[in-house]
Amino acid sequence: MSNVEKMIEPVVEYLYCRTPDAWVQAALDNLDTILIDHAANELKAAQSAMTLISRNPLSLDILNKMSRLAREELVHFEQVLKILKSRDIDYKPLKASGYAYSMAKHVRGDNKGKLVDSLIIGSIIEARSCERFEKISSHLDAELEKFYLSLLKSESRHFQDYLDLAQKYSEEPIDERIHFFLGIEKNSILNPDDLLRLHSGMPTDNLKL
Amino acid sequence: MSNVEKMIEPVVEYLYCRTPDAWVQAALDNLDTILIDHAANELKAAQSAMTLISRNPLSLDILNKMSRLAREELVHFEQVLKILKSRDIDYKPLKASGYAYSMAKHVRGDNKGKLVDSLIIGSIIEARSCERFEKISSHLDAELEKFYLSLLKSESRHFQDYLDLAQKYSEEPIDERIHFFLGIEKNSILNPDDLLRLHSGMPTDNLKL
Repeated sequence: MSNVEKMIEPVVEYLYCRTPDAWVQAALDNLDTILIDHAANELKAAQSAMTLISRNPLSLDILNKMSRLAREELVHFEQVLKILKSRDIDYKPLKASGYAYSMAKHVRGDNKGKLVDSLIIGSIIEARSCERFEKISSHLDAELEKFYLSLLKSESRHFQDYLDLAQKYSEEPIDERIHFFLGIEKNSILNPDDLLRLHSGMPTDNLKL
Repeated sequence: MSNVEKMIEPVVEYLYCRTPDAWVQAALDNLDTILIDHAANELKAAQSAMTLISRNPLSLDILNKMSRLAREELVHFEQVLKILKSRDIDYKPLKASGYAYSMAKHVRGDNKGKLVDSLIIGSIIEARSCERFEKISSHLDAELEKFYLSLLKSESRHFQDYLDLAQKYSEEPIDERIHFFLGIEKNSILNPDDLLRLHSGMPTDNLKL
């Protein structure tokens, strides 16, 4: 088993479905959009980590792990910005896909439930990024392939960090809660989606960028 | 002129007053509070940089400079957390001093004015941190002295980065606007303040921690 296969294995086992080939094809046909959205996603990941820090000031390992995670996401943000610049692609805000919100709207309202659910969603988003980066990487030019493979390692570590923290901060087993969110995520990935993003569903014939 | 003096010189020239000795004495008498507040301040500085990124997605140099600055502030946040832990001091949210708000409440409402004013305030807060770190460092134990002197370099660079960006993004000279905010800042530093923080005023006899 190659290093990449070893890194991707727990992530693929965790998620309830693989990315459909139709998404890969649409992404390759519209790589500029995917790259712009990727930069925005790295930024959002850093912002989510900062939100967890603000909301849980008394949890030292949340502070330490999320601060490091935010820094790594910002490094990736800067790296994608550099790639965009070198390819003369302008960075600009894009309309967000419904992917993250489809899970976020089910986050429980109490402090502990909010923390655990947010951490589970974090683990799922990182896992999906990792799975998609691996799936798309072999179709890309050498520079992007190398870059996306380099991200696998940190995304799979972030996936595990989120999952470990979710387990640590829950007073009860979290298997059912993970199952609930993974089911929603699977639907987002397999249902028709007019919008093409790093995290979006099955591309329709009426695709918007 | 020593390296420290060289770094501190532009910062001291910029600010309208030096920190009163009474603040230094109160800070040394209540070092736990100052260290906890310092950690919170590094976090707030990272958050402010992230806010500037979110609000100005089309300004590439804001994105790049603020992303790097946020990462550096997060490194400092982690460093202060480590110092707190090694000294058995619990990190916890403290009531904020009125210092930042005394300036923030005057930020203009239009996009360009908001950006330029926020950058000017950023330059002032970084300058004051730098000035206070230098002022307090020689009174601290060896570990803290070394740490605070190590921060001077990045704080003085951040001060200059903020100032350069403010000048770049303003269509008119910003001297008057800087003068306005530095005047407010001087008042915050010299006026009586019941609260002791990294950025707070002249300590009263009725000091709260």
